[in-house]
Amino acid sequence: MLFRQLFDRETSTYTYLIADTKAKEAVLVDPVLEQVERDLRLLRELGLTLQFCLETHIHADHITGTDKLRELTSCQGIVPENAQAACADYFIRDGEVLKVGEIEIEAIATLGHTDSHMSYLVNGDRVLTGDSLFIRGCGRTDFQGGDPGTMYDHVTQKLFSLPEETFVYPGHDYKGQTVSTIGEEKRFNPRFAGKDRASFMKLMNNLNLPNPKKISEAVPANKRCGRVLAKAYIKSG
Amino acid sequence: MLFRQLFDRETSTYTYLIADTKAKEAVLVDPVLEQVERDLRLLRELGLTLQFCLETHIHADHITGTDKLRELTSCQGIVPENAQAACADYFIRDGEVLKVGEIEIEAIATLGHTDSHMSYLVNGDRVLTGDSLFIRGCGRTDFQGGDPGTMYDHVTQKLFSLPEETFVYPGHDYKGQTVSTIGEEKRFNPRFAGKDRASFMKLMNNLNLPNPKKISEAVPANKRCGRVLAKAYIKSG
Repeated sequence: MLFRQLFDRETSTYTYLIADTKAKEAVLVDPVLEQVERDLRLLRELGLTLQFCLETHIHADHITGTDKLRELTSCQGIVPENAQAACADYFIRDGEVLKVGEIEIEAIATLGHTDSHMSYLVNGDRVLTGDSLFIRGCGRTDFQGGDPGTMYDHVTQKLFSLPEETFVYPGHDYKGQTVSTIGEEKRFNPRFAGKDRASFMKLMNNLNLPNPKKISEAVPANKRCGRVLAKAYIKSG
Repeated sequence: MLFRQLFDRETSTYTYLIADTKAKEAVLVDPVLEQVERDLRLLRELGLTLQFCLETHIHADHITGTDKLRELTSCQGIVPENAQAACADYFIRDGEVLKVGEIEIEAIATLGHTDSHMSYLVNGDRVLTGDSLFIRGCGRTDFQGGDPGTMYDHVTQKLFSLPEETFVYPGHDYKGQTVSTIGEEKRFNPRFAGKDRASFMKLMNNLNLPNPKKISEAVPANKRCGRVLAKAYIKSG
């Protein structure tokens, strides 16, 4: 297996390239529109066929690269079940396993950041947690059907029940951290460690964060799998 | 073995935390002054004793965290042989192996970016290349005794003779890439692939890069292992 963590500096987003190097089949998890050229070059250099673009959720902070990648390759765009994205080629369900060559990617519904969010457990030993669990933090829960109680339940009951040595690869990091483990997050994540459901909910409900800069542009675009409409068209539409 | 890649966003510097989780002994390679608090917290959480701060070279773009870490822990500061840093506790030589618990870190002199630069081969399967080899690039060669011909020789003869599957972990990345392999860099690094020594030298001698923003502050500080002098002292001294 090839596993590459890639970073978009402007939005602090992690994209993951995962490939079966024998079958030469690849998936990009949470690709970023502005990084499509970088990611395509890497795929080409490594001789990989992009089979899937897989989203953890409909992002509010950046536009997905899925539509552009789909245009330029023969890949399919996959989003979590219930995601508001009619553009998708496939809606993946909780517990479903996506196969990329011999690699198994299991969807684990981890709602709370949005109401249609998946984490992805890769070959049983590393989990891509999207915007549910961050390294020593978690995603916000105040828009797109977010719900702090649900996030608490899904993180503590589903993610924290994975083996302690499972590697945690988040959808963002703002402090230069790249990877953690379930054991570490259970013990040291200040949002969850020693916090009960009620105090977590209180904390999350009082963050008073400003909206992401790109939200009004990103969410509608991501509901089209990242297709950016010409401005004139938006106006007349 | 625990292996953590950490990023300093301002200077696009990678720091590496490497630890023997049984012996609970750790080394930080190329720590950054502004990130000392983050790195210390991680060491504390993981219950690790910092034995060494290990530099690939005397940096020109950021101030090392070594002196501060040495003050706050009992670690030793290690720099490459011939580095102008009398502050160091130890000067590591080409071919020498540093042991951190059961982990073996072999110094490989890869000069050219500066005249005292080491790469570090960790347990034989991953190499920290500092500012010699980057992912699809390399460090500049126009100050601190840099020399493009030497860089070409050391990268192509020493690093490119490692097994192709050896992971490459650079000292910087500016495009969100985190890791590569020797095989990939031999084939796809535009500075070296298909380039002979003369054309590499010509290319490097004509980059005409501006000096790093912090060079006048960083180099003198790093010769003191990162100790920042009070301004009044500098003036009177």
